[in-house]
Amino acid sequence: MKKLINGPADVVRDALGGIAAAHPDLRVDVERRIVVRADAPRPGKVGLVSGGGSGHEPLHGGFVGLGMLDAACPGEVFTSPVPDQMLAATKAVEGGAGVVHVVKNYTGDVMNFQMAAELAQDEGAKVESVLVDDDVAVQDSLYTAGRRGTGATLVVEKVAGALAESGGDLGQVAGIGRKVNERSRSFGIALTACTTPAAGTPTFDLGPDEIELGIGIHGEPGRQRRKIAPASELAEIAAAAILDDMPLDSGDPALVIVNGMGGTPLIELYVVMNEVARILGGRGVTIARSLVGSYVTSLDMAGCMLTLTKLDDELIRLWDAPVRTPALRWGV
Amino acid sequence: MKKLINGPADVVRDALGGIAAAHPDLRVDVERRIVVRADAPRPGKVGLVSGGGSGHEPLHGGFVGLGMLDAACPGEVFTSPVPDQMLAATKAVEGGAGVVHVVKNYTGDVMNFQMAAELAQDEGAKVESVLVDDDVAVQDSLYTAGRRGTGATLVVEKVAGALAESGGDLGQVAGIGRKVNERSRSFGIALTACTTPAAGTPTFDLGPDEIELGIGIHGEPGRQRRKIAPASELAEIAAAAILDDMPLDSGDPALVIVNGMGGTPLIELYVVMNEVARILGGRGVTIARSLVGSYVTSLDMAGCMLTLTKLDDELIRLWDAPVRTPALRWGV
Repeated sequence: MKKLINGPADVVRDALGGIAAAHPDLRVDVERRIVVRADAPRPGKVGLVSGGGSGHEPLHGGFVGLGMLDAACPGEVFTSPVPDQMLAATKAVEGGAGVVHVVKNYTGDVMNFQMAAELAQDEGAKVESVLVDDDVAVQDSLYTAGRRGTGATLVVEKVAGALAESGGDLGQVAGIGRKVNERSRSFGIALTACTTPAAGTPTFDLGPDEIELGIGIHGEPGRQRRKIAPASELAEIAAAAILDDMPLDSGDPALVIVNGMGGTPLIELYVVMNEVARILGGRGVTIARSLVGSYVTSLDMAGCMLTLTKLDDELIRLWDAPVRTPALRWGV
Repeated sequence: MKKLINGPADVVRDALGGIAAAHPDLRVDVERRIVVRADAPRPGKVGLVSGGGSGHEPLHGGFVGLGMLDAACPGEVFTSPVPDQMLAATKAVEGGAGVVHVVKNYTGDVMNFQMAAELAQDEGAKVESVLVDDDVAVQDSLYTAGRRGTGATLVVEKVAGALAESGGDLGQVAGIGRKVNERSRSFGIALTACTTPAAGTPTFDLGPDEIELGIGIHGEPGRQRRKIAPASELAEIAAAAILDDMPLDSGDPALVIVNGMGGTPLIELYVVMNEVARILGGRGVTIARSLVGSYVTSLDMAGCMLTLTKLDDELIRLWDAPVRTPALRWGV
């Protein structure tokens, strides 16, 4: 295993130290493992908290800031944060209007966020939870009952964050998050597995010309192994898996995310974007907004994930609203 | 070779198609291979053009937009663009105030940009050239006489772009670009080589526990091969190589870029950032600004490059000025 780390046990702490050094406008509690917006809690504003295992950077710490998350709590690599961490994050951003938890659908995350929500409610905070389960590839898996939460998480965080920023109340912010999730689907393709620092070897084996279709973001295998194919064919597979589950009609405006899994360079993601544009164009779907880059990753896995969100005027307005975080920034 | 591409000969064209689909605010001429700001040429504004081989994305096309480049011309992978391309880009952005070429110090780029400048001057355009040669690792190499141009290129483009945007004249814009280059140094470390689509095999061989110090951005080997070491030690090596060449004193404000080479995930870059902050903190150097991410890449190479720029008030002001490009965006 070759990684730019000190030791497997130090990765999360060291990375949080790096986030603190690079982003002095965030409050990073390296010991308790919480990243918080500098101006939190803001009285009267609904707080937005997410978290999950590390190894998916910039998710979630890179999405903390104006117009997106108020706090993130990273667990160990591919391991859920503990309820105490989530509770501390919740209390750090509770400004009297309640807190929304954005929870990716993994058994550990769901259980721990539920416990944290109950603890916070015992202390008088109102908490709503938004479950993200956008991955069409797998129904139930090693880590999940139901679908996994993957690429749509950042869309939920962006859109709900914008509504919270502009004064939405607890029910509205949770509601818009659920709406985004309902209108989003993802499908991922791996060219390589990833290697966790603790294990030191790839999470599964792929031959020199093999790829894995329908992968998740924790190094778990997907639903089919096959030979590598041209980007045009792989984009068709990903788009078809999504559109079979959530048809988009001619004229529908879509948000397209071509997301790198961590080990794939940008030039390849743009090649995939070109193919996705061709496919959607052929169906008359409008690419209203897009994002090409590595936003929801799986350590050093090579590959990409396609996420499509069916937009409407409300979602476009909230997507376009100002955001200022380490990984997403515009309008401010 | 496993890549998300259609074929080696299609990579650059397809990626440009993807840039066009993702960024409708840019004009992308896929056939002539030029990416131009939608509002170019702007009368009275100095134009800023860069270009070079593909495979370094988001450099340069991802830096076209308000406050940075007016145009970029990508060559084939790791191959200089041709003078005709550079000339077309120059003419597309010439608004009467002259054009600055930002040229990384590689023999092909230097020669072709010089030819393009002469052709443009024959047609009545004033052209100045800024040579970027920030890499302290290697004096002369396979591709260069003198030092190579690497991570500082984006700083030159950002700062010179800001001055051009705010009305700087041709001499001033070229001058500030040269000032940035003089005050910038870079040093790169590879955990793996990269694989060009045309060759299909890694550009050099590294053992399972070997790394290469002082690499460039074209898959060329560096100045020393050694065993992998903790991030703390690797950061010391990179920082020492830079600071031996360009000492920073206590109180000096620095721009720190921890740049991923294309195949390294963000979590590792933040681990390195943490170490760089510790080293600079120990010398009393102030991290005035920073950037952590993959901005000047070498296809799928795993590893990172450290770039330090010695800032002053003028450079900080221009760095902070609004920018709106695919890869760097703030203030607008």
